[in-house]
Amino acid sequence: MTSIAELTARVRAFAQERNWEQFHTPKNLAMALAGEVGELLAELQWLTPEQSAAVIRDEEIGPRVRAEIGDVTIYLVRLADVLGIDLVQAAIDKLEDSGRRYTVEAAHGSIAKIRGDHPGGS
Amino acid sequence: MTSIAELTARVRAFAQERNWEQFHTPKNLAMALAGEVGELLAELQWLTPEQSAAVIRDEEIGPRVRAEIGDVTIYLVRLADVLGIDLVQAAIDKLEDSGRRYTVEAAHGSIAKIRGDHPGGS
Amino acid sequence: MTSIAELTARVRAFAQERNWEQFHTPKNLAMALAGEVGELLAELQWLTPEQSAAVIRDEEIGPRVRAEIGDVTIYLVRLADVLGIDLVQAAIDKLEDSGRRYTVEAAHGSIAKIRGDHPGGS
Amino acid sequence: MTSIAELTARVRAFAQERNWEQFHTPKNLAMALAGEVGELLAELQWLTPEQSAAVIRDEEIGPRVRAEIGDVTIYLVRLADVLGIDLVQAAIDKLEDSGRRYTVEAAHGSIAKIRGDHPGGS
Repeated sequence: MTSIAELTARVRAFAQERNWEQFHTPKNLAMALAGEVGELLAELQWLTPEQSAAVIRDEEIGPRVRAEIGDVTIYLVRLADVLGIDLVQAAIDKLEDSGRRYTVEAAHGSIAKIRGDHPGGS
Repeated sequence: MTSIAELTARVRAFAQERNWEQFHTPKNLAMALAGEVGELLAELQWLTPEQSAAVIRDEEIGPRVRAEIGDVTIYLVRLADVLGIDLVQAAIDKLEDSGRRYTVEAAHGSIAKIRGDHPGGS
Repeated sequence: MTSIAELTARVRAFAQERNWEQFHTPKNLAMALAGEVGELLAELQWLTPEQSAAVIRDEEIGPRVRAEIGDVTIYLVRLADVLGIDLVQAAIDKLEDSGRRYTVEAAHGSIAKIRGDHPGGS
Repeated sequence: MTSIAELTARVRAFAQERNWEQFHTPKNLAMALAGEVGELLAELQWLTPEQSAAVIRDEEIGPRVRAEIGDVTIYLVRLADVLGIDLVQAAIDKLEDSGRRYTVEAAHGSIAKIRGDHPGGS
């Protein structure tokens, strides 16, 4: 299994070989990341919750969703590299912070607690 | 260094402990991912390219950007887990596909080739 | 009822009075628009289809959704103004184009036709 | 010049004729809106601020940007219609609220005040 560190190195080499580093500011990469997330949303937007739960087994849409996840991951890894951030550690730090704010007792299955808010998120 | 597999397990446990799996359809998680990317954009939107390149060293904005990267990573990892996708492999497959479409020779430093298009992406 | 032209003039004056025109490039405004759409998604992300259909009558979330729609509209109007585009005419032109591509006969109620695609859209 | 009310009626008829109302929940439409904003970002992501300021005069990208603005407007108008919201009034209400929070004196040309925040926005 490839590690994030190896993937980061491969994406960096991909950009360097094409002399694309000049375009890869954090601002531009964040926009590219958002663009790819937009394509992911477009694949899921008209599906019912049930259809979305089974989407990866759909012969037509499943591979497209997987490809979009790949694109999102590429830009996220590249953005973290350019920023000099360890994205896994950033996630763990945020998860620990969220654990303090959404305790298991208070948050248990409560949509009232999380409507309009971000479980596991900000 | 924590691996993606370990992070995935921790995020899954976080959701299970709070009985939040019922909310974590691919569709809902993609929306949550997009919401976090929107918060990341909001941190960078008024910066010049130069300011954005130095943003992580800004005492005020730097930690917020890192926290947003953490949030984005959490939801991306959770989404891949729910879909049953290896997100690193999905990225590598996409990178290889992009390598065939944007050859080093054709793409070298050319903004004409990439304006409105996605280097390293779709 | 206020027209788009009047709203455009008010948003422009708002920016000019604060000397914010320097920040209002199309690129920056598109990011701001995306950030506000992200906030809108965050309000709706955990809702069932049924809950989302009734969201505007929810005492807590309804006003927040309306406020986010207001923010999205402000940035869209400002972006169109900076670009020198009539956004209503742009919408009509696109709607006519979509009408040719999604004929009533072919598209009638068919999710197969529109899954992953954009009815009334691109 | 077509009004928002007329555009709203045309977009509604477009959806009704195709029996697409079943897909047009606020949640789904917000996702579609975000998907179109993502396409707009993709057009602008690699441009310098100067290139973005002149984008509408670019023979290739200009018409694509205008078409994306059209798509964004279509979904925003449709979402407001489904929610029963007057989007222009929602924008004006928000603008007045922002005027109280960002007074002309305090906000004048100050990037320090607005970095990571939303002038004319939330």
